[in-house]
Amino acid sequence: MLDKIRVVLVNTSHPGNIGGTARAMKNMGLSKLVLVQPEEFPSGDANARASGATDILENAVVVETLEEALTGCSLVLGTSARDRRIPWPLLDPRECAQKSLEHAELGGEVALVFGREYAGLTNEELQRCQYHVHIPANPEFSSLNLATAVQVLAYEVRMDWLARAGQPTKQEKLETTAMLDAVPVTADELERFYAHLEETLVQIAFLDPAKPRHLMARLRRLYGRAGISKLEMNILRGILTETQKAARGELSQRSTD
Amino acid sequence: MLDKIRVVLVNTSHPGNIGGTARAMKNMGLSKLVLVQPEEFPSGDANARASGATDILENAVVVETLEEALTGCSLVLGTSARDRRIPWPLLDPRECAQKSLEHAELGGEVALVFGREYAGLTNEELQRCQYHVHIPANPEFSSLNLATAVQVLAYEVRMDWLARAGQPTKQEKLETTAMLDAVPVTADELERFYAHLEETLVQIAFLDPAKPRHLMARLRRLYGRAGISKLEMNILRGILTETQKAARGELSQRSTD
Repeated sequence: MLDKIRVVLVNTSHPGNIGGTARAMKNMGLSKLVLVQPEEFPSGDANARASGATDILENAVVVETLEEALTGCSLVLGTSARDRRIPWPLLDPRECAQKSLEHAELGGEVALVFGREYAGLTNEELQRCQYHVHIPANPEFSSLNLATAVQVLAYEVRMDWLARAGQPTKQEKLETTAMLDAVPVTADELERFYAHLEETLVQIAFLDPAKPRHLMARLRRLYGRAGISKLEMNILRGILTETQKAARGELSQRSTD
Repeated sequence: MLDKIRVVLVNTSHPGNIGGTARAMKNMGLSKLVLVQPEEFPSGDANARASGATDILENAVVVETLEEALTGCSLVLGTSARDRRIPWPLLDPRECAQKSLEHAELGGEVALVFGREYAGLTNEELQRCQYHVHIPANPEFSSLNLATAVQVLAYEVRMDWLARAGQPTKQEKLETTAMLDAVPVTADELERFYAHLEETLVQIAFLDPAKPRHLMARLRRLYGRAGISKLEMNILRGILTETQKAARGELSQRSTD
């Protein structure tokens, strides 16, 4: 579905930004790059900044007009940093991603259009877009680097795509030991641990059964909150057992052997 | 609230990335930059890429160790591209932002830690982080440019911050004990606790310094995840001190008095 979403750069001045865009796109799983009258392309700077995403640059399509760049697209979203005189339907990057993927899911082609480094998109170009996308930046310092702006939109596209695909946004690969580590302890195991802990704290004279105050409650809250795994529970129980031996003086005997 | 969130770059090779980071931070309203042993700083390349965010660079703090960079922080999040043998609590950028702002709202200091351009963070560095943050990139091309990765996290921080703006902060009125219990410990307090814990585990012969395996890493992960308060830390340190007495046999002497 990501192959239905193209990135269009209009009149880019610095080839390094084209390379940075290619890298950001590939990082997020996008592949179609269209360049409208780039000042310098192909370019060594672009290749350097692409840092391995050279396939995106090699397959990039260079065209003369925005119109050509948008051929076949049924949804066009243009990035805009400025307030415009005619208010346009405005999306934030997250809404832009939702809109793009809803559209792609239905089989439509989508264009994300980015303007010049300093001047952005012209009013005429912006009027070719159904929606304007605004990255909510610091009003006092609002101009993002071009490749960085592409990264933000591409990131949101990927987040939305992963969510739709039912894929986790966090890739957790767990192996066997890791499994044991992922299984949380049950309430009764936790109770047995608290009993063992309390017994031990009395033995090392940290807890006075006559004046328990809120000590056990506080420890219950702490360990309860941590969401302890089976493996971690084994460790904690092991520590208690060794502490008890120490409290019984077994350790000091051993060390004087 | 954004002033409670610092960006920490570890061992950056290319000064251009420091500049790009400064720009991305300022774009998103972040201002505190800490550099751990940058290869070259200050630098003309950094200034050029900062593109006006020179105040961030001028106020950047350069330190020798990650530990110094984290002083005063009670929530540390480290970016990680790789799968680790010991699974760590993993967040995507959106969850990272939520966690960071929840924490900052309570008055805690937060560090977002980014590793080297090619090698990322070491295992040891990652174990100093309570959470790992993973940007869900294309598995076949997953390494983002450093400044671009900063942009993604800073963007999510800003999105969450904007959503919260206008909402009442959680920190209303807390009483004295409750205060102590609500204040999370800082990274350096946590480090001292781990050192004390390790020492104690060796003394009770639970930890063999010759074969430490992943024990301390697992315990760091557990306690890091719990988000320990100052009051709870006092309790845990008290338990360790009593355990050490027991291990030295002081307790068994006392009980035979």
